[in-house]
Amino acid sequence: MSKISPPHIGRLPAGPADSIADVPGVTVGHCTLNYGAIQTGVTVVRPHGGDLFRQKVPAAAVTFNGFGKSVGLMQVEELGVLETPIALTNTFAVGAVAIAQTRAAVADNPGIGRSLPSVNPLVFECNDGYLNDMQAFAVEEQHYRQALDNASGTVVQGAVGAGRGMSCFDLKGGIGSASRKVAIGSAEYTVGALVLANFGKLPDLVVDGERLGKTLKCLQKRFDEPEKGSIIMLIATDAPLDARQLRRLAGRAGVGLARTGSVYGHGSGDIALAFSTAQTVPHMADAASPALHFSCLHDNLLDPFFYAVADSTEQAILNALFAAEAVKGRDGHQRRSLSDLLEILATMEHA
Amino acid sequence: MSKISPPHIGRLPAGPADSIADVPGVTVGHCTLNYGAIQTGVTVVRPHGGDLFRQKVPAAAVTFNGFGKSVGLMQVEELGVLETPIALTNTFAVGAVAIAQTRAAVADNPGIGRSLPSVNPLVFECNDGYLNDMQAFAVEEQHYRQALDNASGTVVQGAVGAGRGMSCFDLKGGIGSASRKVAIGSAEYTVGALVLANFGKLPDLVVDGERLGKTLKCLQKRFDEPEKGSIIMLIATDAPLDARQLRRLAGRAGVGLARTGSVYGHGSGDIALAFSTAQTVPHMADAASPALHFSCLHDNLLDPFFYAVADSTEQAILNALFAAEAVKGRDGHQRRSLSDLLEILATMEHA
Amino acid sequence: MSKISPPHIGRLPAGPADSIADVPGVTVGHCTLNYGAIQTGVTVVRPHGGDLFRQKVPAAAVTFNGFGKSVGLMQVEELGVLETPIALTNTFAVGAVAIAQTRAAVADNPGIGRSLPSVNPLVFECNDGYLNDMQAFAVEEQHYRQALDNASGTVVQGAVGAGRGMSCFDLKGGIGSASRKVAIGSAEYTVGALVLANFGKLPDLVVDGERLGKTLKCLQKRFDEPEKGSIIMLIATDAPLDARQLRRLAGRAGVGLARTGSVYGHGSGDIALAFSTAQTVPHMADAASPALHFSCLHDNLLDPFFYAVADSTEQAILNALFAAEAVKGRDGHQRRSLSDLLEILATMEHA
Amino acid sequence: MSKISPPHIGRLPAGPADSIADVPGVTVGHCTLNYGAIQTGVTVVRPHGGDLFRQKVPAAAVTFNGFGKSVGLMQVEELGVLETPIALTNTFAVGAVAIAQTRAAVADNPGIGRSLPSVNPLVFECNDGYLNDMQAFAVEEQHYRQALDNASGTVVQGAVGAGRGMSCFDLKGGIGSASRKVAIGSAEYTVGALVLANFGKLPDLVVDGERLGKTLKCLQKRFDEPEKGSIIMLIATDAPLDARQLRRLAGRAGVGLARTGSVYGHGSGDIALAFSTAQTVPHMADAASPALHFSCLHDNLLDPFFYAVADSTEQAILNALFAAEAVKGRDGHQRRSLSDLLEILATMEHA
Repeated sequence: MSKISPPHIGRLPAGPADSIADVPGVTVGHCTLNYGAIQTGVTVVRPHGGDLFRQKVPAAAVTFNGFGKSVGLMQVEELGVLETPIALTNTFAVGAVAIAQTRAAVADNPGIGRSLPSVNPLVFECNDGYLNDMQAFAVEEQHYRQALDNASGTVVQGAVGAGRGMSCFDLKGGIGSASRKVAIGSAEYTVGALVLANFGKLPDLVVDGERLGKTLKCLQKRFDEPEKGSIIMLIATDAPLDARQLRRLAGRAGVGLARTGSVYGHGSGDIALAFSTAQTVPHMADAASPALHFSCLHDNLLDPFFYAVADSTEQAILNALFAAEAVKGRDGHQRRSLSDLLEILATMEHA
Repeated sequence: MSKISPPHIGRLPAGPADSIADVPGVTVGHCTLNYGAIQTGVTVVRPHGGDLFRQKVPAAAVTFNGFGKSVGLMQVEELGVLETPIALTNTFAVGAVAIAQTRAAVADNPGIGRSLPSVNPLVFECNDGYLNDMQAFAVEEQHYRQALDNASGTVVQGAVGAGRGMSCFDLKGGIGSASRKVAIGSAEYTVGALVLANFGKLPDLVVDGERLGKTLKCLQKRFDEPEKGSIIMLIATDAPLDARQLRRLAGRAGVGLARTGSVYGHGSGDIALAFSTAQTVPHMADAASPALHFSCLHDNLLDPFFYAVADSTEQAILNALFAAEAVKGRDGHQRRSLSDLLEILATMEHA
Repeated sequence: MSKISPPHIGRLPAGPADSIADVPGVTVGHCTLNYGAIQTGVTVVRPHGGDLFRQKVPAAAVTFNGFGKSVGLMQVEELGVLETPIALTNTFAVGAVAIAQTRAAVADNPGIGRSLPSVNPLVFECNDGYLNDMQAFAVEEQHYRQALDNASGTVVQGAVGAGRGMSCFDLKGGIGSASRKVAIGSAEYTVGALVLANFGKLPDLVVDGERLGKTLKCLQKRFDEPEKGSIIMLIATDAPLDARQLRRLAGRAGVGLARTGSVYGHGSGDIALAFSTAQTVPHMADAASPALHFSCLHDNLLDPFFYAVADSTEQAILNALFAAEAVKGRDGHQRRSLSDLLEILATMEHA
Repeated sequence: MSKISPPHIGRLPAGPADSIADVPGVTVGHCTLNYGAIQTGVTVVRPHGGDLFRQKVPAAAVTFNGFGKSVGLMQVEELGVLETPIALTNTFAVGAVAIAQTRAAVADNPGIGRSLPSVNPLVFECNDGYLNDMQAFAVEEQHYRQALDNASGTVVQGAVGAGRGMSCFDLKGGIGSASRKVAIGSAEYTVGALVLANFGKLPDLVVDGERLGKTLKCLQKRFDEPEKGSIIMLIATDAPLDARQLRRLAGRAGVGLARTGSVYGHGSGDIALAFSTAQTVPHMADAASPALHFSCLHDNLLDPFFYAVADSTEQAILNALFAAEAVKGRDGHQRRSLSDLLEILATMEHA
């Protein structure tokens, strides 16, 4: 039977690949750990192919619910830039990946922590402990480097990389991505989203406005179970925007998330981070002059970007659900795929 | 033809009146100005019937988009309490209503600004300039007092009070309210919402998951118009919660708002404020002892409240749309009601 | 006897006038109300001589303690710009001055609130209720306009304008201003501060590191009195900085404040706002293209500006104290001047 | 020659040990690494002797400048509690210590990351790269455990634990601690501070109001060097305060820091975290009822605590400087002690 495809969200067109890599220069790499009770990994999003410590990119984040252990956001807030690739992994692996990021930056810039200031690791996490044995601390520094080496313009989605062990709406979740095109006058910009989706209860699932979960009477008993999951939402754009404006964009990822049925549960680390690839901020040692020259779109022009962020985030979550294959993990735990569920439901309707 | 009713949002039951006044002690009053180009007013929400300066209530706010002129939030953030009734009005009327609030507090507590500290006016606004001639500065201090005097447990909704001149999804907007019941063990709590709805473009309108606006092909040209409106979302509860927890509740009003089709447009002042009536904070002069004794629900129990906030906010927005009658205002501007639109659409289907 | 002068704070040089007007284009105007129990007024700081609604300036604020009623900060936070002159006045006069600001903007731009969006009044306040009868609501809209008309490059300091009725360290406080020069490579920039000083208890007063208050044994009994005052600290610079960077500058006004003996008391509204005159943000209707082109200094160069903000703020507070003459106000209340105190102390030493 | 003692800061009395351990139940432990180019370590502050995951304590943080890599603050902000001991270390060691904290919590609560939610590591850092070879990544998980095992009510100060390699005002910095007593009616509370001091340039040093650095003409050339250091300021109290109030306390640590000569430099991670030991928040599984019962002091009573925080922070910084012995580290780098400097200066005066 052919794969069921997710609906197109919203009225803006997608980019050619409908992924975050439609934003020129952005690449994504995974390292997937898949053996027995170890169902986890690392995913890396590189804003550009160069050395981010020397050529930082404007960025800002918004926390919708802060029950999370991601690292690096304080400095992003203060300075408005990223200076490493963005890493995603499981909750217990943040430390190992942060160390790997630091070592990688030092390898490229041996003065870091000596003649140069320190580097700010940026690692996001969700808790994949239902499928993955987090207590095994299986993610090691090498896995970050492998994910980095694997980065390319082809974004593999579903139960891969950091998404390997994630659950979403009681189904298999993981990595999803999408993009939307925005026209401003004669210029065209791209907004891309990549999510690590690990949230939600099936009774709450909404697919393109349709309350899928509502129709599944068998699920009603789960209404009162706590919502324990999280989601990381990364937003990239090639539009020239500064950190303040990127924070405004990041805030609209929460709109896309809400549309899928989430209420940002108590136990979630629901965070969005947006960055722009249009311009880089050189490390001071590389700055040609004291003043940097930037372009920014006028704030009055941001509405189409807000739609693009909301739509591509919602799309990316659905793409994660539609792409993710069923996974069996620790202690006999398993998650079925949305595709499995939809096929079963389709069969029942025809019976 | 009978009035079309809004659908019930979510799976939690509403309170008896499905309004914010289902939270015991909360009352709402309007003063409506309706003559020619003056289509505006004041709405007051009283957390309790006493003197709020002497018996403050815990409160917290979240700003989803800050293109707005509401006053009083800085002190709410610092001290975690309200100390006046909450007033809603039009953008240009904030000053007059803030003065009225100060005078009212001074009348009850003549030491304010002398032997007592000053009082913190709390006034929210939306821009009703499409229907109302804001430049006439028609709202005066007496209108605040009238709204206060009119406060009761019966919440009139639609094109009344501050909602008189508001627009929502290119239709007539205004005041809407709703409530939801939450059971925690053997205890039952109520969450109530009251909104001043003045946002959205018709093509974006979603009614209970149905993209109503999407079906109206004639409206497609409006996609690119800027979203200029705003919404104020007030959340009341009788559950014992402190200011930090109330901030968490306020954040979920944005979920309800997103579900109706909003992306928190650039030009909007989208703000939620949540307060609890379970306990009051006495003015220092009235405090029996240096330490105050409070109860708070455990944070792990907040998920049902998050659903209640999201659902009652979405419901309140729909209730505003369904309740609001058509209004003609300045310069021949007018807004049709959602009921009008639905009737026309129903007629067309049967033709 | 000759006037005692305040010491020079820090090692950076002051500008020619040692006032905020050393920042090119910045002007300051007062309207002082001085009759019997009415000891209050309005002070206006204009970032430039043009129409701020059409040519906004980058700005950001930091709240050190939020027991205050200033208005306009939410929109400054969201959009990173000012769009009116900055007004200072007493706590109860905020509403009247905000209305005056709105009317003035409408007079210049009749579309505001109609075809144009609304305007964001920006009014800061301190509580001058010890000397001034705030309950008389003596400040009217015309006083804002008079202050605006009086704006010039000569900054009158002390018990004038909004500072007329303010108290500082149990002495007469009010308006103070100062400036510092910062050299970045071959470029020279100016940082200017203007404060509305209305805080502190005499036993805490520190003048250039000297704990003046500590030496006055007669004052020890006042240690336990609550600190009820506030301070507004406005920072201007001609350096090209964006809103995020200006927020960083604003945060250092708290350093200058702390050095004078303040601990940001519970009952204070201690707020700093920083703006840059180097570039303006045109209203959308006036924007020549969708993208705006800005320069920003590299963040690594901000340390000298942090010193300049801390030093000029501390200097401005001292300047307010040294400039302010004794004032008698309502109910026989009066505040002596620091000069009076220093003269008395000098006399005692020689006795 | 006898040790020179730091002056007593402020007018509030110190507790018996003038350290954070004067707050009942608070203990401090160090693990110091001191061999050749490795001059670093770990310091642990335990709010109480029990299992913090099961008995969390209210807490809140304020960031004065966010050029830092500390972890755990997002969840503290959301939930208002700590759930691990507080760890201090060098910048590159944060990952290892965070892993150690997670493992320690899992050891005590094997359900963490399985049937129980994840645990939030809380690790603060400063950059000791001038003396210590951070690139050696010498800090390992065992060092966290050793610091934890060493925790006691005797607070060793100076060049120990995380403070081993830290620099402060171009002198040897490190760990300092202090305490102050606050009387509220008939009750007496303690405020304790512990700092990891690694900031400042000698020309800026102020000791109890005396601008020591100003007198050292030989140092003037260093005025223009960048300020690269950081400071972590931990505040403990046994007063019953909630997270919102503790954030207010944490904000006043910046006052103490400013008084010593800091302007919160661009390259600094200047962070304060305050916690209360008066009450604990049980993990949900241990909660006897849905509602928790708390006491909080009235906010109007907080002024004495603000002085206590400012004074004990300033004192703790001075205590760090006075306690720290000279240290030689990597590549021949060394830092002299303040005591050495004061002795030399004293000698010169007598010459």
